[in-house]
Amino acid sequence: MSAIDFWFSIGSTYTYLTVRRLPELAAREGVDVTWRPFDVRAIMLEQNNIPFRDKPVKTAYMWRDIARRAGKYRLAPQLPAPYPLNDLAFANQVALLGLNEGWGQKFVIAAYENWFEKGLVPDEGEGLTASLEAAGQDPEPTIARAASDTIAAQLVQDTETARDLGVFGSPSFAVGGEIFWGDDRLEDAIAWARHGSLA
Amino acid sequence: MSAIDFWFSIGSTYTYLTVRRLPELAAREGVDVTWRPFDVRAIMLEQNNIPFRDKPVKTAYMWRDIARRAGKYRLAPQLPAPYPLNDLAFANQVALLGLNEGWGQKFVIAAYENWFEKGLVPDEGEGLTASLEAAGQDPEPTIARAASDTIAAQLVQDTETARDLGVFGSPSFAVGGEIFWGDDRLEDAIAWARHGSLA
Repeated sequence: MSAIDFWFSIGSTYTYLTVRRLPELAAREGVDVTWRPFDVRAIMLEQNNIPFRDKPVKTAYMWRDIARRAGKYRLAPQLPAPYPLNDLAFANQVALLGLNEGWGQKFVIAAYENWFEKGLVPDEGEGLTASLEAAGQDPEPTIARAASDTIAAQLVQDTETARDLGVFGSPSFAVGGEIFWGDDRLEDAIAWARHGSLA
Repeated sequence: MSAIDFWFSIGSTYTYLTVRRLPELAAREGVDVTWRPFDVRAIMLEQNNIPFRDKPVKTAYMWRDIARRAGKYRLAPQLPAPYPLNDLAFANQVALLGLNEGWGQKFVIAAYENWFEKGLVPDEGEGLTASLEAAGQDPEPTIARAASDTIAAQLVQDTETARDLGVFGSPSFAVGGEIFWGDDRLEDAIAWARHGSLA
């Protein structure tokens, strides 16, 4: 049994599905998962790989696909959610701070619930403060800590680590030297963690 | 139970997985599938949505992902296959002629076997002639018929039909007013055909 590194960026749409179903699935399968925020937008810009910008047909499909899959997972998002985020990097600095301090998963789950189920963006305003409160944090000082140069530099460093692994999108799952990309590869990643293959 | 239109372009990499596993899966599930070739490259160029061009990281991932999934499906491709094709439109004109005349599925399956399992491109040369022979056709006159203005115009028309349905990639599955994109959505498309939902 290998562990999985779950590389994600708050700001990615399909990551909603993973964030909402991963905790229960990982517990049921007995797989250890480390949550690793990174700045997917930085990598996408470097690689000229912006999946939805100026692509209205593909974007419309993405929302419909998420709606159908959310139904399969018994989730009830309000779609389309506000998109794209203005400050994707900062949302992930908050997540990184939280994971350093032990409240990160609660924050990320609340951030996606507020964003996709209540229409509140996770990177500023009510969505950010409500998600911090859901994770048991006082918003104002927490936001100040997340905005520190130290956390900003750590996110840049972790993004370099993700890039070096071959991660180019969110969600991605790193397990046993393999990268699996997409919520629809979560089961593959778990199979690889358990068996070292998909068979 | 709804029927599925399987929209595909010979030239797409992930379509290899679908072409090789769809006949058995559709028979087992009792779902009627109509094979519909189109020119995915024309739509991708129009929509500025070229998935792999100048994206080496994403392209490397694609080959690894196909290798893993092929193993899951007990297929043994030689990867990477020659890519991209020079004359994607013509390969699909041949497929369209064959589907008009009743030998199209055999040709498409042979074309992908020759391309992905023997390294022979499907749009010209030995890969084209061997795939036509596998479908019981005399290559030279068949290639001449496939190159006719009538077949070229039918492929353009069918590509417009696909575009109007919201198809932007190959493979896509049209069922009950829904579009499902990607080999990894084939099971979703079959579920929708059977139940009108993914649940």
